[in-house]
Amino acid sequence: MDLDLLRELAAPNDTKIVLAVIDGLGGLPHPATGRSELETADTPHLDRLAAESSCGLTIPVSIGVTPGSGPGHLALFGYDPLTYKVGRGVLESLGIDFDLQPGDVAARGNFCTLDAEDKIVDRRAGRIPTDESAEICKQLAQIELPGVDLFVEPVRDYRFVLVLRASDRKKLSDQVRDTDPQKEGVKPLSAKAKGPGARSTATLVNAFVDQARELLKGRETANGITLRGFAQQPDLPNMSEVLGLRAAAIAMYPMYRGLAKLIGMTILDAGESFLDGVESLKTHWDDFDFFFIHYKPADAAGEDGDFHAKVTSLEAFDKSVPDLRALGADVLMIAGDHSTPAGLAAHSWHPVPFVLSAANTRPDDARNFDERSCQRGSLGTFPASEVMPLAMAHAGRLAKYGA
Amino acid sequence: MDLDLLRELAAPNDTKIVLAVIDGLGGLPHPATGRSELETADTPHLDRLAAESSCGLTIPVSIGVTPGSGPGHLALFGYDPLTYKVGRGVLESLGIDFDLQPGDVAARGNFCTLDAEDKIVDRRAGRIPTDESAEICKQLAQIELPGVDLFVEPVRDYRFVLVLRASDRKKLSDQVRDTDPQKEGVKPLSAKAKGPGARSTATLVNAFVDQARELLKGRETANGITLRGFAQQPDLPNMSEVLGLRAAAIAMYPMYRGLAKLIGMTILDAGESFLDGVESLKTHWDDFDFFFIHYKPADAAGEDGDFHAKVTSLEAFDKSVPDLRALGADVLMIAGDHSTPAGLAAHSWHPVPFVLSAANTRPDDARNFDERSCQRGSLGTFPASEVMPLAMAHAGRLAKYGA
Repeated sequence: MDLDLLRELAAPNDTKIVLAVIDGLGGLPHPATGRSELETADTPHLDRLAAESSCGLTIPVSIGVTPGSGPGHLALFGYDPLTYKVGRGVLESLGIDFDLQPGDVAARGNFCTLDAEDKIVDRRAGRIPTDESAEICKQLAQIELPGVDLFVEPVRDYRFVLVLRASDRKKLSDQVRDTDPQKEGVKPLSAKAKGPGARSTATLVNAFVDQARELLKGRETANGITLRGFAQQPDLPNMSEVLGLRAAAIAMYPMYRGLAKLIGMTILDAGESFLDGVESLKTHWDDFDFFFIHYKPADAAGEDGDFHAKVTSLEAFDKSVPDLRALGADVLMIAGDHSTPAGLAAHSWHPVPFVLSAANTRPDDARNFDERSCQRGSLGTFPASEVMPLAMAHAGRLAKYGA
Repeated sequence: MDLDLLRELAAPNDTKIVLAVIDGLGGLPHPATGRSELETADTPHLDRLAAESSCGLTIPVSIGVTPGSGPGHLALFGYDPLTYKVGRGVLESLGIDFDLQPGDVAARGNFCTLDAEDKIVDRRAGRIPTDESAEICKQLAQIELPGVDLFVEPVRDYRFVLVLRASDRKKLSDQVRDTDPQKEGVKPLSAKAKGPGARSTATLVNAFVDQARELLKGRETANGITLRGFAQQPDLPNMSEVLGLRAAAIAMYPMYRGLAKLIGMTILDAGESFLDGVESLKTHWDDFDFFFIHYKPADAAGEDGDFHAKVTSLEAFDKSVPDLRALGADVLMIAGDHSTPAGLAAHSWHPVPFVLSAANTRPDDARNFDERSCQRGSLGTFPASEVMPLAMAHAGRLAKYGA
């Protein structure tokens, strides 16, 4: 449903909606057992929830498309990710609470280790600690470029954000290609404009990279940088305004908070663990109508290609399901932003298990919460961007369409 | 499929298509039994049809969206209801055979009962009988407004239609907000223009409402009016022309006839019962290629929140299935325009059971005609606007796309 229609139909109510997102939820069978991570994990609470609720599978972006975390989440929030796009640089900078201004160009940076020929030998510079990274960022922030202010902010480990802000009437453009070649053994690429309007920005970026390389020359590791995801802040509709509800987000990782903030969610304290997050949710129960709570470990384990760790992370999540149910939301959903099968050690295009618990759901044959069972669910296989309309319907927050 | 493609692919044939629409067909489980209205009803003929045919579930408008009857039917006729919109006022006026002209503005009216402070105490004026309503309409039709002719026509019980027709070069607009506040204890709203182009129309409407209030002041009940669904006749493609077939409609209720007429169907006599309708269909068998026949009682029972009555209405419909099958249509479909679960006493967003009987259908695991069984159908869960393309295909009326 497009956001205009959603805005038109959204109706006030005093119901509560909780969306718990297990990052990278979906998986694939282990070759030795034929059972996926979810099928292998002992998840009695998720299985009971599935048996008592309506299940289905969500398609994050489009059939066959592997989503990044940004599009995967935007879809779950009701934003068609093919229409509403958020660049990586913007997500990263919002995630560290950087006060991005309209017109700023932000990029995600990695410190990397270069050899004598400037070829990348370690794309993550031995995953240097955040402290060390912060020190280097301070050095780089002293670089001066004509007509722009620049900000170099540490994120976590070897990751940082570069922001260029025009200090005169110069207009910056985010139509600049990545300098990150995404592999080792080659030099970082020079920044190239995607079109004539971005040439001056690309020139500035290359000047920054050259000066950074000079400044870091003395270091053995983390002596180079790569940049990707050049982006300017998009003007996204405000979720609370579109849906007519007060939306809050609980996420330990910066990017997810950043994304939630970008569509107008209030960011709540996530604490140090998922259970802290659930406690935080409980504390703010009366202040919001919609809660997004994010669980990262499943994706991290999947990305590491660690089948067992992913199973364990799902079992750990399972233990929090009774707490989530005890909140008494009118609509409780457990969803994933995309699949991250351990066998692929990467995000994938496979549809993602989904369960919706509410009054007035249709019963179905899904007895467990896993890929195979959700396929038999009454919700079918459907676009993730329809999750919010479905939730709104079950929460009595969507008016009838037409006479 | 959009209508342009449908028009391009439609090919002539001498096959017959019958679409029987059970209004409000879909339901939800009864809390005491866990079985829906369709699962509770004894419907041997529908079940046999389901077992011998292809089943599925239709999504009337969009996931989570509860449709009015207009959009629900338009979708089944092949018209995407988010593209093709028909206002309530237009549907109501066509349904009483009012000869609406291009440019006329029609609104659905309710007689209501106001207290001394003009606050609504009964939105339906004690459901006054149609006779009484017709008398009041005559009174109101004498109201004079500058530059427009007006028509006040009774519909049924407390319902009427107001039509404004420009008598000079004035251009009327339907961009006027409802005066019906949809609740009691408050005054009717004054008509407000949605934009500058509708200001003069809104002024005329308010003048009408004021004069009506004066005229009805002496009455104890039905002494006020509310208006909603201001609408002008949309220019909808003609179904017979798009599909290359002769289409006929059989419906006892005005609105459904009105809608069918709007897309160019020929209206046949519906008689006094559904079986009369089937007889009428038989009588006109040779004259048309497509027949839409409408069955209302399931929706009425659902809207009343009467589970048992809905079960009974479905059982009553079931008895007509052998007659429908005996027609020998090349394609026979039983569908619903939306769900009306008795438990909700209202239309709902839930997908609607659907069965298609024809040669060349795929067998499936749907053994009964109900929500759970249709979920296992070979047609899957699909947009209701794809019902006609599917029927056309099975009727040998769709050409191959591309070489």
